[in-house]
Amino acid sequence: MSEVRFREARVRDLPAIVAMLADDDLGRNREDLQALAAYSLAFGQIEGDVHNRIIVGDKDGAAIACLQLTFIKGLSRKGAMRALVEGVRVIASERGSGVGEVLMRHAIALSKGAGCRLVQLTSDKRRDRAHEFYRRLGFVDSHEGFKLEFAP
Amino acid sequence: MSEVRFREARVRDLPAIVAMLADDDLGRNREDLQALAAYSLAFGQIEGDVHNRIIVGDKDGAAIACLQLTFIKGLSRKGAMRALVEGVRVIASERGSGVGEVLMRHAIALSKGAGCRLVQLTSDKRRDRAHEFYRRLGFVDSHEGFKLEFAP
Repeated sequence: MSEVRFREARVRDLPAIVAMLADDDLGRNREDLQALAAYSLAFGQIEGDVHNRIIVGDKDGAAIACLQLTFIKGLSRKGAMRALVEGVRVIASERGSGVGEVLMRHAIALSKGAGCRLVQLTSDKRRDRAHEFYRRLGFVDSHEGFKLEFAP
Repeated sequence: MSEVRFREARVRDLPAIVAMLADDDLGRNREDLQALAAYSLAFGQIEGDVHNRIIVGDKDGAAIACLQLTFIKGLSRKGAMRALVEGVRVIASERGSGVGEVLMRHAIALSKGAGCRLVQLTSDKRRDRAHEFYRRLGFVDSHEGFKLEFAP
């Protein structure tokens, strides 16, 4: 089996990342594989923000898992920095391989290394299996996650 | 009654903001009013980040309500930007006055104006009254909010 290594995403990973975001029960209707300009612009803006990054699991040069990791300084908890995780995805052929867990542990270690006091994320209430996954990693579902979406 | 206006926090608001963060059932044990250097450092870092700001409700020059508003660019939802709200507080003497709701509506309008596709926040499951407050503002508690705290 090829080894998986974890690194920051490069622009050449973008089609694979967008495909992973779209290949998801809930994400399917929110993505548009034709909207390459919009994704490219967003990728550039993320690259230009030192607090914000996309991490991929790389197997033989191909991105097979991804997540977004954002470090956010705040005043609460004595001026703590927190990490926010969004968009955790694993390519269909690698689901169940454990790569998602290793990717998350990598993100947690990066957050700790950067001085974050906590890592937080929200997960749609319909994603039961994801909730078990996060609990296994030590996350506690202590909060309600609220969203207010604007009409397009 | 004096009018409340909303503006970005200045460093002179910091003692009032920290006092609001600490005057909270859940926040009480997480804050330390003596840790002014740590709060000041965090305030400076937030001021230096164009995506991150503290908004206060100002009444006669005093900060009587606050929240943190962070804009986060992502790849999902066709490269959408989202707003994250943290640390919503109202000074004890103004609770029930409606200022919290007006402050939140201001943050929502800022987020929409900046091009965000959604506003998100998490609220501790013990904060029942806060949940009603967010629902009245149009938020939907569609997600579980997970936290992983590092030992100090």
